[in-house]
Amino acid sequence: MASVVGEEVSNKQVIFKDYFTGFPKESDMYLTTSTIKLKVPEGSNGVLLKNLYLSCDPVMRILMQRVVPKGFSNYTPGSPINGYGVAKVLDSGHPDFKAGDLVWGSARWEEYSLITVTEGLRKITHSDVPLSYYTGLLGMPGMTAYAGFHEVCSPKKGEYVFVSAASGAVGQLVGQFAKLLGCYVVGSAGSKEKVDLLKNKFGFDDAFNYKEEHDLDAALKRYFPEGIDIYFENVGGETLDAVLLNMKVHGRIAVCGMISQYNLDQPEGVKNLMCLIYKRIHMTGFTVRDYYHLYPKFLDTVLPYIKEGKIAYVEDIAEGLESGPAALVGLFSGRNIGKQVVVIARE
Amino acid sequence: MASVVGEEVSNKQVIFKDYFTGFPKESDMYLTTSTIKLKVPEGSNGVLLKNLYLSCDPVMRILMQRVVPKGFSNYTPGSPINGYGVAKVLDSGHPDFKAGDLVWGSARWEEYSLITVTEGLRKITHSDVPLSYYTGLLGMPGMTAYAGFHEVCSPKKGEYVFVSAASGAVGQLVGQFAKLLGCYVVGSAGSKEKVDLLKNKFGFDDAFNYKEEHDLDAALKRYFPEGIDIYFENVGGETLDAVLLNMKVHGRIAVCGMISQYNLDQPEGVKNLMCLIYKRIHMTGFTVRDYYHLYPKFLDTVLPYIKEGKIAYVEDIAEGLESGPAALVGLFSGRNIGKQVVVIARE
Repeated sequence: MASVVGEEVSNKQVIFKDYFTGFPKESDMYLTTSTIKLKVPEGSNGVLLKNLYLSCDPVMRILMQRVVPKGFSNYTPGSPINGYGVAKVLDSGHPDFKAGDLVWGSARWEEYSLITVTEGLRKITHSDVPLSYYTGLLGMPGMTAYAGFHEVCSPKKGEYVFVSAASGAVGQLVGQFAKLLGCYVVGSAGSKEKVDLLKNKFGFDDAFNYKEEHDLDAALKRYFPEGIDIYFENVGGETLDAVLLNMKVHGRIAVCGMISQYNLDQPEGVKNLMCLIYKRIHMTGFTVRDYYHLYPKFLDTVLPYIKEGKIAYVEDIAEGLESGPAALVGLFSGRNIGKQVVVIARE
Repeated sequence: MASVVGEEVSNKQVIFKDYFTGFPKESDMYLTTSTIKLKVPEGSNGVLLKNLYLSCDPVMRILMQRVVPKGFSNYTPGSPINGYGVAKVLDSGHPDFKAGDLVWGSARWEEYSLITVTEGLRKITHSDVPLSYYTGLLGMPGMTAYAGFHEVCSPKKGEYVFVSAASGAVGQLVGQFAKLLGCYVVGSAGSKEKVDLLKNKFGFDDAFNYKEEHDLDAALKRYFPEGIDIYFENVGGETLDAVLLNMKVHGRIAVCGMISQYNLDQPEGVKNLMCLIYKRIHMTGFTVRDYYHLYPKFLDTVLPYIKEGKIAYVEDIAEGLESGPAALVGLFSGRNIGKQVVVIARE
C-alpha cells in the first residue's frame, strides 16, 4: 500500500514495558497503535521515514537494563524500542535527504518514524542488493565483522581462527573474511543445522555444536591441535575460559560480544586469564562505532564479493512488526538461523 | 674469603623438595652442602660462577607446580631452585667470558655454579652502581617495568595510571617511569609502610593500602574520579575486577603478573570482562623475554636517571643463602619492602 505524504495514518509500535533482569521475554514488550502524520513539521530539519526492515541485535538486551554502561542509552519504558533498520524517506526537511531516498541506521520499532536527529542515518547508495542486507552484511554487523577481524585481529594468511556464535550475523561474516584471507577457520554454534550451515554454506573448514561438547577445552584441542591464533569472541564465559587454554603464543582475541552473559544477574567469572601472560595474548574489546570511517572501503570490498558470489549470507526473516518481540527474544535461545531480521514492509 | 680457582670447596645449595599446591612454605625447600671444584672441566665451554646476589621473583612460585605452562621449565625435586642472580666468573671455557667478569641472568641457588648453557647470562658493563641492582632495577624486573610500561601501555603525558603491588620490584619502577613521562600515578600496596614509601620515596601522586579498603571499586573511584587510562596489572583477581569498572574508554591494561592467583588451586573468576567491550580496552599479557633486544636502550635511559637521582629504588636484602627460602616465601605474604634480594657474597 502506498504511503501518501501528508496523510494521517495508524502507526503500529513495539513498546518497551519496563527494565528487568534475566532472559528477555516477549511480554517485556507490547504492541500498540498510535497515529502519525506522514509529514515533517514546518521548519523541522528532520525526516519522516517508512520503516522497512528492522535488525535484531544482541546488544539490544543491554538497553533493557535499568543501569547501562557509560555511552549507552537504555530504553524508555512506554516508548518504542530502537535499534538498526532500513527505511525509506517519505518526507524530508533535511538537505541531505529527499523523499524516495533509502537509508539505513538508527531505527525505532514502528511502522513510521519522525526522526529529528539524523546523525544515525546513512543513505543507501547501492540498492542492487536485497535492502535487508543493510541490517546485516552491509550494515552494522557487517562492519563489525570487517573491522573486528581486519583491524583488531591483525590476521595473516594461514593463521588458525576460531569464531563462536559463528552462524550469527557477525560470526558468519568473520569466518568468511578469514577464509578469503587464507586462514583456517573453525566455528561453534548451537545446533546441527547451524553447524551444517557453517561447513556447507559459509565454507568454514570445520565446525561443532557446543551443546554436544561437555568439555570445550577438549573440543578445541581436537579442532586446533596446534592452537588458536585468533579468537573472535561473541560468547564469553566458559567458552572464553576454554579458548584461553588453547590460544597460541602471541594470539589475539577480538572481544566483540559476550551473548552468554547478557542475561545473567552476575556474569560468570573467567578463570584462565593468566594465559594472557604465559602466551602474551592481546585481548581487545571493540565497538563498531570506532570504525565507521572505514565504511566506504568496506563497501568497496564487500559489494564485489556479493556480486561474484564469494560471500554467502543467511537471514532469518520474521514477517511483520507483530513478530518482532519473539524474533528479538529468540536471539538469546539461539532460535534464529543466521541474521535475524524483521520485515515491516518490503517497500 | 677469596675463592681459589682449581680448589675443591663446599657448596651450600637451596634444594627444591617437591611439587605442592597452595602457598609456598620454607619447608618446601631445604639447605644442603655439596662440594664443587672451582674449575671448568677440560674442553667445556661453560663458566664457573661465584654467585653474589639472588633475586626472589613471584614467577618462581609457578615453577614449583607439577604442571607448568608451555615454555616454562619447572624445578626438579632434589635439585637447586633457580632464578635470576648476579655472579662473578671464576673460570671460563667460553670465549665471551673471562675470569673476573661480572654477569647477571639465570642463576642457581647455590654458592658456586658450573653453568654449561650460557645463553641466559649477560655481562655487566656498568659496575659503578650496586651490583644487586642487576637483580632488579637494572635486571629482569627493571626491563619488565620499562617494556611493560613504554612498549605495552602506549602511555601519553597526562594520563592516569594505576599500579598494583606498587612497592614491589616492578611496580615501584613502573610508577616512576610513569611520573617521569608526566602521568598521574596511584599505587596500591599492602601496608602503611609501603604506602608511605610510594608517596614519599617513589613520588607517586597517591597510594592506598588495599587491605584497608573493603570496596576496591569505591576506592578506585575516589582516587580516579575520571577513570584510569593505564592499569599495570601485577595482582589479578578482584583487583582486576574492580579496575575494569574504572577504566576509561580506550584504556590499556598491561598484564605483567597476577600474584594473588599463583597459590590458588583454582584461580578466582574475573567477572567484569564485558567492560573490555563497552570501553574498548586493550588488555595485553606480556613477558620480558620478548623485549630484551631493548636492553641497551633501557640501560642508556635508566643509568643516567640513577646517577642524576631521578629514580629511587628500594631493596629488601636478606643476608646469606640460608635466609633465601624465607625471603622467597615472604613475597607471597607481602613481607618484603621493595625488591627482595638474597645476598650470598658481596664479591
